[in-house]
Amino acid sequence: MLKLHGFAVSNYYNMVKLALLEKGLPFEEVLFFGGQVPDSLKISPRGKVPVLETEQGFLSETDIILDYIEQTQGGKPLLPAEPFARAKVWELVKEIELYIELTARVFYPQSFFGAEVPEPLKAKAWPELLAGLATLKRNGLFAPYVAGERFTVADLYFFFSVDLARAVGRKVYGVDVLEDFPQAVALLELIGQNPHVAAINEAKAAMFPTFLEKVVKARSQQ
Amino acid sequence: MLKLHGFAVSNYYNMVKLALLEKGLPFEEVLFFGGQVPDSLKISPRGKVPVLETEQGFLSETDIILDYIEQTQGGKPLLPAEPFARAKVWELVKEIELYIELTARVFYPQSFFGAEVPEPLKAKAWPELLAGLATLKRNGLFAPYVAGERFTVADLYFFFSVDLARAVGRKVYGVDVLEDFPQAVALLELIGQNPHVAAINEAKAAMFPTFLEKVVKARSQQ
Repeated sequence: MLKLHGFAVSNYYNMVKLALLEKGLPFEEVLFFGGQVPDSLKISPRGKVPVLETEQGFLSETDIILDYIEQTQGGKPLLPAEPFARAKVWELVKEIELYIELTARVFYPQSFFGAEVPEPLKAKAWPELLAGLATLKRNGLFAPYVAGERFTVADLYFFFSVDLARAVGRKVYGVDVLEDFPQAVALLELIGQNPHVAAINEAKAAMFPTFLEKVVKARSQQ
Repeated sequence: MLKLHGFAVSNYYNMVKLALLEKGLPFEEVLFFGGQVPDSLKISPRGKVPVLETEQGFLSETDIILDYIEQTQGGKPLLPAEPFARAKVWELVKEIELYIELTARVFYPQSFFGAEVPEPLKAKAWPELLAGLATLKRNGLFAPYVAGERFTVADLYFFFSVDLARAVGRKVYGVDVLEDFPQAVALLELIGQNPHVAAINEAKAAMFPTFLEKVVKARSQQ
C-alpha cells in the first residue's frame, strides 16, 4: 500500500492527501516533519514534506508524486488523457506553485508564526505574488474548476496555495488579493464544501498547536 | 513544425533547444524576450521564456514543454519508460530547478548585470543554494549522467543551471561551490563537449551584448 509521509499542517502534504482521497485509493499516513537531519534526508533528498513511499522506493516533490500516482494507480483521473490538454493543466500547476505558492511562502513566518520578514524580501515577493495571481486569472478557466469542467491536480494547488496567499495579503498588507477575482473566491468555496477537505482541515487544526511549538522551538535554537 | 519562442541567452530556452537538438527533431526558433506586455502575455501567461508553439497552441514552463515533447514527438528518449524511474528523473529536475536554479537566480543581477542585490536576499538565498547543491550530490547518480548511464532531461537542467550557480559563487563570494563535488565538474566538462552545446554557446555569446543592453535600459526605466 502507498504510504504518505508528512504532517497535516503542510499544504503540500494536504494536496497529495486530497488527491488520494479523491481518487479513492487506499494509503497509510506516516508522521514525518522533514528537516535537515540524517534520518529525514534518507527518505527525502532535500528533507522536504511530503514523501510518497512506494514498493520501489521514496518519491519527493508534490507534482512528481501526483504525476506518478496518476500514471500508476487507478481511481478517478485528475488529469485529461490528451497530451496537450494535460500539459495545459500542468502549466497551471506550475504557475500556481512558482508564482503564487513560493512567493506567498516568503511571508509565512510573519503571517502565521509571529516572526518578522525583512523588508527587502517582502518588497521583492509582494509584486511577484500579485503577478502570479494575475497570471492565474489570465490562464485559468474557472468553469468552475481551474482547468475547466473537471476537478484536476491544478485545483489541488489552487485550493491549498491561494487560500494561504489570501491570508498573507490580509495579515501583512490588510488587503484581499482576491477582491477582483470572484471566480477564484467561488472556487475556494466550492472546493471547501468537499467532505474530504473538511476531514483534512480537521486534521490540520488538530495538529497546528504541536506544529507551532516545533516552529517556535526551532527558531529559538537558531 | 514546432516553434520555440525565446532568446539565446536564456538558460531555460537553451534547455529546450538542446532537448530538441538531442532528439533530432525539426523546429523553428522565434525571437521572443517575454515580459509584462500584452503581446507577450498573449502567448505566455506569466510573460516568461521559453514558449513552445504547437499545432494546438502555446505552452509555457520548461519542464512542461520537455514532458510534452517527450510524450508526443519521436527521437531519442530523454526519459526512462518505466514510471518510477521516470519520476526519479523528474525529482532530480525539480530539485535542480527549485533549490539550485531559483536560488542562484537571486544573484544574477549582481553576478552578470552589474547591479546590487540587497543583503537580506543574499543571506536567505546563499545557504539555500548550498543546500540545493548538497541535495543534488546526495540524490544524483553521476554515472556519468545525473540520473545514471543515459543523458536525460535532468542533465539539461544540470548543465544550464549548475554552471550559472558556480559562476555566482565565484563572482559574489569568491568560492567554487563545486570544490567538493568532482563528479559534477566532470559532468559539466562532458556535456560541454557536445557539439550541440557548442552551437548553443555560440548563439548565446552572439546575443549577449544585445541582451545586456536591454537589461540595462529596462533597469534605467524602472
